[in-house]
Amino acid sequence: MPSKYRNFRSSVPWIILFLEVVLIILFYFLFSDDDDASASTNSYPAFQDVNHMVIFGFGFFLTFLKRYGFSSTGFNLLIIVLGVQCSVLIEDLLVLLLQREYKDGLQRITKAAVSMTAVVISTGAVLGKTNPVQLILMAVVEIIAFHMSRSINTTFLQVPDNISMVHVHLFGAYFGLAVSSHFSEPSPRTEKNASTPKSDLLSMLGTLFLWVFWPSFNSVLLVEEKTKAIYNTYFALAVSAVTAFVLSLLTAKDGKFRMTDIHSAVLAGGVTVGHAAHIIEYPWIAMILGLLASGIAILGSYCLQRCLHPALKIHDTSGIHFTFGLPGVLGALAQVVLLVL
Amino acid sequence: MPSKYRNFRSSVPWIILFLEVVLIILFYFLFSDDDDASASTNSYPAFQDVNHMVIFGFGFFLTFLKRYGFSSTGFNLLIIVLGVQCSVLIEDLLVLLLQREYKDGLQRITKAAVSMTAVVISTGAVLGKTNPVQLILMAVVEIIAFHMSRSINTTFLQVPDNISMVHVHLFGAYFGLAVSSHFSEPSPRTEKNASTPKSDLLSMLGTLFLWVFWPSFNSVLLVEEKTKAIYNTYFALAVSAVTAFVLSLLTAKDGKFRMTDIHSAVLAGGVTVGHAAHIIEYPWIAMILGLLASGIAILGSYCLQRCLHPALKIHDTSGIHFTFGLPGVLGALAQVVLLVL
Amino acid sequence: MPSKYRNFRSSVPWIILFLEVVLIILFYFLFSDDDDASASTNSYPAFQDVNHMVIFGFGFFLTFLKRYGFSSTGFNLLIIVLGVQCSVLIEDLLVLLLQREYKDGLQRITKAAVSMTAVVISTGAVLGKTNPVQLILMAVVEIIAFHMSRSINTTFLQVPDNISMVHVHLFGAYFGLAVSSHFSEPSPRTEKNASTPKSDLLSMLGTLFLWVFWPSFNSVLLVEEKTKAIYNTYFALAVSAVTAFVLSLLTAKDGKFRMTDIHSAVLAGGVTVGHAAHIIEYPWIAMILGLLASGIAILGSYCLQRCLHPALKIHDTSGIHFTFGLPGVLGALAQVVLLVL
Repeated sequence: MPSKYRNFRSSVPWIILFLEVVLIILFYFLFSDDDDASASTNSYPAFQDVNHMVIFGFGFFLTFLKRYGFSSTGFNLLIIVLGVQCSVLIEDLLVLLLQREYKDGLQRITKAAVSMTAVVISTGAVLGKTNPVQLILMAVVEIIAFHMSRSINTTFLQVPDNISMVHVHLFGAYFGLAVSSHFSEPSPRTEKNASTPKSDLLSMLGTLFLWVFWPSFNSVLLVEEKTKAIYNTYFALAVSAVTAFVLSLLTAKDGKFRMTDIHSAVLAGGVTVGHAAHIIEYPWIAMILGLLASGIAILGSYCLQRCLHPALKIHDTSGIHFTFGLPGVLGALAQVVLLVL
Repeated sequence: MPSKYRNFRSSVPWIILFLEVVLIILFYFLFSDDDDASASTNSYPAFQDVNHMVIFGFGFFLTFLKRYGFSSTGFNLLIIVLGVQCSVLIEDLLVLLLQREYKDGLQRITKAAVSMTAVVISTGAVLGKTNPVQLILMAVVEIIAFHMSRSINTTFLQVPDNISMVHVHLFGAYFGLAVSSHFSEPSPRTEKNASTPKSDLLSMLGTLFLWVFWPSFNSVLLVEEKTKAIYNTYFALAVSAVTAFVLSLLTAKDGKFRMTDIHSAVLAGGVTVGHAAHIIEYPWIAMILGLLASGIAILGSYCLQRCLHPALKIHDTSGIHFTFGLPGVLGALAQVVLLVL
Repeated sequence: MPSKYRNFRSSVPWIILFLEVVLIILFYFLFSDDDDASASTNSYPAFQDVNHMVIFGFGFFLTFLKRYGFSSTGFNLLIIVLGVQCSVLIEDLLVLLLQREYKDGLQRITKAAVSMTAVVISTGAVLGKTNPVQLILMAVVEIIAFHMSRSINTTFLQVPDNISMVHVHLFGAYFGLAVSSHFSEPSPRTEKNASTPKSDLLSMLGTLFLWVFWPSFNSVLLVEEKTKAIYNTYFALAVSAVTAFVLSLLTAKDGKFRMTDIHSAVLAGGVTVGHAAHIIEYPWIAMILGLLASGIAILGSYCLQRCLHPALKIHDTSGIHFTFGLPGVLGALAQVVLLVL
């Protein structure tokens, strides 16, 4: 019923405003400030890199649908700023409840920005099928679920805090797929699913942005072995970029690069290495992981879209399953193997 | 008379060249170098952030007029490099005259880049009404006036040097409005005032750029409490982004975001908090300031454009009065209230 | 023969894959890791700046041909990641053979990224005349030649390691011109040489990117006097930007800026000062060098394209001879003069 929808639509701003007021009130009661913020100024450039990634990188990465042009970048900003505030609050609540040590403000927003990657990845799966309120609701629920899953990991499984953060890609991808399976696929004639050359270009630009900033992402929460994590990530990304070009040429019929393949495979190395970037001894291991991750991403994009997704009735708009999901699984396996060795 | 104008136009490059030669000669006599540049390498990333803001952020922020497409980004570069050189020289002259302590080269160009924000903001008010030479003249006069006003502040009113710098938004906005009232509004049929969807997008991109880099801007000149300034600014910006979306939805008739509103209100929180970012104790204060600033910017844009500006014969091309002026006034009031408490 | 070409084309991915596998195997044997990586985390923002320059800056700088739109940015990425891996390996081999001291991983990839600038500059001269395999081959040969030339410089001529790196512009420009003279000029009717307003804009954007990051480039490999190098480079760039606008207006007939002139001259100051940025005592020297460099670049673009290039049968697609070659020669001369004084 259109009149019902119009009524609902007019309540959207009030819902957002109510959420924001609740957040400010919670901040008044919960946000705890400690004054011994010593080494945090050094990490400001790293925070900025992650901030750029989530605002610009993922913002453009998701603009590949014709109907979700530049306004999706604006909407991405709205989801991220709401999510970061939620995330800082939940983290503070956990610190209060579990009697953990306080962190300074900058580190808290850095962790919140990293957590928001999960939400942004999930958004990629449901793009074109949800309305703004559903997206905001998904963001709030997902960020709570993510912090609960991390909290279980660190408390019961004794996973170190920094390590539990790298599950962000895996969590984001599979949460997104689970949400996506509850929405019906948009009918092809609505053109909600169509992309244009221009939107593909913007999306490629976003991917390049993510590619360049990925070493910062993999090293931002580490306290030691930062340099090792940075260069392992760089080499893994380099090899997966090369592999993406090679596989794209091999699977193409006209001998030209297909931007969509490169788009999904070029980041795979960074996702895979994220789990173990700081414990990999030699760069050749990272390079082989990059090669495998990129291969899995491109082969996965063929198999999943033809076999698995139709069977499970999943419709994965921007292919987050093979861009972030499968390389994340490979990374988790690699981490276990490396720790055993 | 067109022939007169053509003669004048052919003298533009000579005027710029003459100005540049004068600057080099003054540099020869005035620039004083001290060798104990200790902690300055650390601040290089912060300088880069501010440099990005003035070159890319404000460059794109001002490209929203159809006639001033990408070439305005180039022209913006010309004004900034001339202004930075002037600003460094004036600062050096003041150091000589007032017997203040020397600063190292990097800090001097950082301060000069921050000062140039005033000029770039003023440019927003006169865009589409001035020729290049008038703009360059305005830049030189404004940078001199800004340094004199700062010098009076620090010498007679005992305002600390870093604090006097945050008046840059206020100064820029009202200087621009004053200059703007001396130019007649361009006639609507010349299309000098028209914008296109594409130029709006570029302008939105510039705004996003400014949004991301604003915490750097508010913390770059502080010597302590940098972290506090960074996260207070971040929270204020986050809340004003949310409020901008909410108010844009409320004032829109078709239930869609209007980019122009978001454009002016999303930065308001950062401008307001700039005055007091390092003395705000709890982030909820910054968040409430962000909420108020964003509200003032959007309500101001309705009231001012309909009532005040026609009465005062001000024509504010890119709305700097409500984007930078009003939030700056709010910030100055907030600073006084916070200092009294 | 088209069938022959198609066969060749189908082997391109296998050639790239073979190269990548060889690189991984060599990494297994050659990459040596030392664990005392002390001060390297500080240089990560500087590495990121250089990484941005080569991926985004030069990527867009080279997109000015209509036929080489955004895909050239992707291809640029492929060449850079292959080249960086080669460069790290060659550096390691030289360390093994010449018994020099080890450097940590981050510094090695920083140096490799700086070296790749030579390859990217050379690419500018042969753009539109070569196929992908020729470009990759050129990249590998050039990076080997560059390291051999550096090795001769440091071993026999006792040039310090950091200084030998700034010859990267000179080497890149003249290597590119030498390669370019072996290819025939594309016939004008194929439109391989044409540019569009949109591709010119992207190219201008790339130039702005390079302009902003150039101080990082000139200071990244220095161990001391970083601040001096940064602000000397900034002033030289500022003056050459002003001079570029002035000369562009003087040589234009309609009194408007010509983007192509600005494109080539705005960076000239940075290239020239690169050789001596850390030994220039006063910024006015850097400013005069910037003025001269910009003048040489624009005058050179007129003389070379009309007299020298047709005589030597050189076809320099993106004008690297006057953008990087001539300012590099001026910089080398200035360095000698300054060292003698």
